[in-house]
Amino acid sequence: MIHKEQEKENESLTMDNLNPYILGVSDAVRGPTVVRAVEIEQQLKNNFNQFPFNRVIRANIGDPHASFNQSPITYIRQFVAGCTYPPLMDMSDFPIDIKQRVERLLNACSGKSLGSYTESQGIVTVREDIANYIECRDDYPANPNNIYLCNGATEGIRLVLKLLMNNNQNKPSGIMIPIPQYSLYSDTLSLYGAYQIRYYLDEDNNWALNLNELQRAFDEAKEYCIPRGIVIINPGNPTGQVLSSENIKMVIQFAYKHKLFILADEVYQENIYFTDSKFYSFKKIMMDLGLPYNQMQMASFHSASKGWHGECGSRGGYYELINLSKEVRIQVNKLVSASICSTAWGQVIMNAIINPPKKGEPSYELYEKERSDVLNRLKEKANLITDLFNSVEGVHCNRVMGSMYAFPRIDLPEKAIEYTKSLNMTPDTFYCFQLLEKTGICVVPGSGFKQQPNTYHFRITILSPTDEIKQIVDQFRTFHKSFLREWK
Amino acid sequence: MIHKEQEKENESLTMDNLNPYILGVSDAVRGPTVVRAVEIEQQLKNNFNQFPFNRVIRANIGDPHASFNQSPITYIRQFVAGCTYPPLMDMSDFPIDIKQRVERLLNACSGKSLGSYTESQGIVTVREDIANYIECRDDYPANPNNIYLCNGATEGIRLVLKLLMNNNQNKPSGIMIPIPQYSLYSDTLSLYGAYQIRYYLDEDNNWALNLNELQRAFDEAKEYCIPRGIVIINPGNPTGQVLSSENIKMVIQFAYKHKLFILADEVYQENIYFTDSKFYSFKKIMMDLGLPYNQMQMASFHSASKGWHGECGSRGGYYELINLSKEVRIQVNKLVSASICSTAWGQVIMNAIINPPKKGEPSYELYEKERSDVLNRLKEKANLITDLFNSVEGVHCNRVMGSMYAFPRIDLPEKAIEYTKSLNMTPDTFYCFQLLEKTGICVVPGSGFKQQPNTYHFRITILSPTDEIKQIVDQFRTFHKSFLREWK
Repeated sequence: MIHKEQEKENESLTMDNLNPYILGVSDAVRGPTVVRAVEIEQQLKNNFNQFPFNRVIRANIGDPHASFNQSPITYIRQFVAGCTYPPLMDMSDFPIDIKQRVERLLNACSGKSLGSYTESQGIVTVREDIANYIECRDDYPANPNNIYLCNGATEGIRLVLKLLMNNNQNKPSGIMIPIPQYSLYSDTLSLYGAYQIRYYLDEDNNWALNLNELQRAFDEAKEYCIPRGIVIINPGNPTGQVLSSENIKMVIQFAYKHKLFILADEVYQENIYFTDSKFYSFKKIMMDLGLPYNQMQMASFHSASKGWHGECGSRGGYYELINLSKEVRIQVNKLVSASICSTAWGQVIMNAIINPPKKGEPSYELYEKERSDVLNRLKEKANLITDLFNSVEGVHCNRVMGSMYAFPRIDLPEKAIEYTKSLNMTPDTFYCFQLLEKTGICVVPGSGFKQQPNTYHFRITILSPTDEIKQIVDQFRTFHKSFLREWK
Repeated sequence: MIHKEQEKENESLTMDNLNPYILGVSDAVRGPTVVRAVEIEQQLKNNFNQFPFNRVIRANIGDPHASFNQSPITYIRQFVAGCTYPPLMDMSDFPIDIKQRVERLLNACSGKSLGSYTESQGIVTVREDIANYIECRDDYPANPNNIYLCNGATEGIRLVLKLLMNNNQNKPSGIMIPIPQYSLYSDTLSLYGAYQIRYYLDEDNNWALNLNELQRAFDEAKEYCIPRGIVIINPGNPTGQVLSSENIKMVIQFAYKHKLFILADEVYQENIYFTDSKFYSFKKIMMDLGLPYNQMQMASFHSASKGWHGECGSRGGYYELINLSKEVRIQVNKLVSASICSTAWGQVIMNAIINPPKKGEPSYELYEKERSDVLNRLKEKANLITDLFNSVEGVHCNRVMGSMYAFPRIDLPEKAIEYTKSLNMTPDTFYCFQLLEKTGICVVPGSGFKQQPNTYHFRITILSPTDEIKQIVDQFRTFHKSFLREWK
């Protein structure tokens, strides 16, 4: 015991002197419900027959290859394998367009190897292809020098937020973030000691942004911080909405009025399911608005991890930074080069995603078949899951227009809410734990993303196969009814 | 003009409100000399015949595939290609051990795809293999739960430094860093607003650490900060030294006495050239020392980018964190999981590096041949470059015992030193610019790594082919003589 205390005394890193900002970081998406899910999986493997189900359904994270057996896209993997091991180009029967793409990409790498460091912003050819992709998407010019490759959008978002941190003044920097939001934002701002200016998305209006609400959040926060930027997630995570061009226009004008740097999280831009929805980039709408809006500064983020292709593990991503002054740009480039470069394999996968085979090329037909298979199924599932959840009493679910998630609201009985207070647990977390224990369905409680006070939600991916979705919602329906009965 | 000013007025991100800590970040390794080198390369391509050389020698960065045409290791690339595109296992004539390794690794990935997110700490199988590698290296147990995969050692080092930041008190956190040092450390500490406790390596003693100097640096810094950790780079960057076990023992005892968290940057652990040198990990020496030292907290970093294999672009890396309390561990794991996971391809490459083919396996012979070819050449070059630099008057170069660099000291004429003051440039930067313009040799000025006041160095990689190294030093000798003559 003396030994133990002596050790403690000599510890250099303890809970008392740990960076205190780390305590404010949550772990929503991989948090306690997921830890419990992993435990249950282990127990199921060991044949502990104590659960009324035989497998856990990991609907907590948008990861198509992982739990739903979506196969990798042939074109992407052939291209990456070829870049990895060029002798394959002679050995294998890869299509000729793959071979040409591999040769073109390796020619852009120092020493013709992915083993070399790339330029800090990313391989020039990849940045040119991305600029071209953006031009085709928006119908406005894009400059490869404005493109930065990164290890998943996460790294890029953290870097851009870092630029805006200027806490040396009396007040910390403040960033407007949507509620509900992807926890990366609140976590990063906690870690940076920044102020979270939380604006609520309008659930009654399909999770759109509301001008009065933006103004309220801004006005209330001014006392505590210096507002510097605004984050918009479109298509929405966890909400699954796709913003209209009018809504985006309103946000841009609001940001202009208050000199806010725009961070447009557009990582789900290729995942649009609702027939009446279309993806408009913030950059496009800014450009459409003309002067002075088209001079505004903003960052738009995209990711290889978040498309329908399911290449989450690659951690490829990029951001476009526009309208920075030359002086600021120099500082950004310096900061970027301090990390040397992002993973070359991630860059190659990002390249494959934004530059798919074109009509007439040998890889085109198979690619198109694989693409439409995945997207048609996602579309079908997005509609199905919305309708099914809305058929359950006490559940309201906005239409899943894009991204990979539904975010249904659940009416919880007062008695259950009261009870969870004694557990020091949010009611929705309690609910999601119960759902997991009773059905094996693993979802993320709404409190992980924040939500309007006294409302309760959960996030569920729409990735399960169609017939499974029906089963899942049926199991959910049974569970929900019995939960209501239990806590009546 | 009015328009221009109006725009400025509406800029949300300016030099005035940019994060001020970013200004303190340097860009040593990819800084102004490299920018100029790229310009010159472009001009050479355009046939501007204004230079007395026909190509730039990129000796500024340790990147074997890039400038020196070192080929990727067959085993590594076959393994990664197979994991990327599993149908290759049927199509190609890859050796059977590659096929078995691919199958084993994919079985450890969700959905058997690298496209899935991995566990936040990294794929279990990879962590088990790393633990096994560490056990074989040190002869002490290693726990896979203490291993964290990351995007290059850079990301891991930043995370561990982040843990130690506790600037909420009256004084900032202080971290002891070697001088000269790899600029990642000073840059990260600048960005974190932390205090750099700079201790000088003993150039006269082969860049070893010196107890009196450690104590001096510590004592002087106490007034300005709360010392929290000590960074050691072994084998050295930019210095190329390999520390003796006695030197490491001294550092551990010093760290114990002052309750410093040890950050052991051991990314060059497989690059040892000097016959009398051996790599000792900090962990091994700590364990050898027994109680109470073997209870100390520390992190050891390794990287796929820095070995003799040259897989820099992969940005694979890992760190081992030992002796953390359970409570602190929970916080670390939460922070790690907020980034979801590191690139799966980087993890696979890291796995290939620490788990090479074994004797008797089909891939073994070719691997061993490729390995000894590279390492024997590096050894030869390390010795050659040391001897050659020491044969130049006014140049002193410690023996390159490990890593990938020589760090010669150059005596510069007073007149040149005086002149550079008027340029607002350090003398060694001026010297390196001149070297580049006259010979095409691109190296990094010592001031990028910091150095003893009134001493001047540069860092040069030892990666060029043997006959080229002779040419390079000959060109350097001619340049150096004429520089001395010019500034006499």
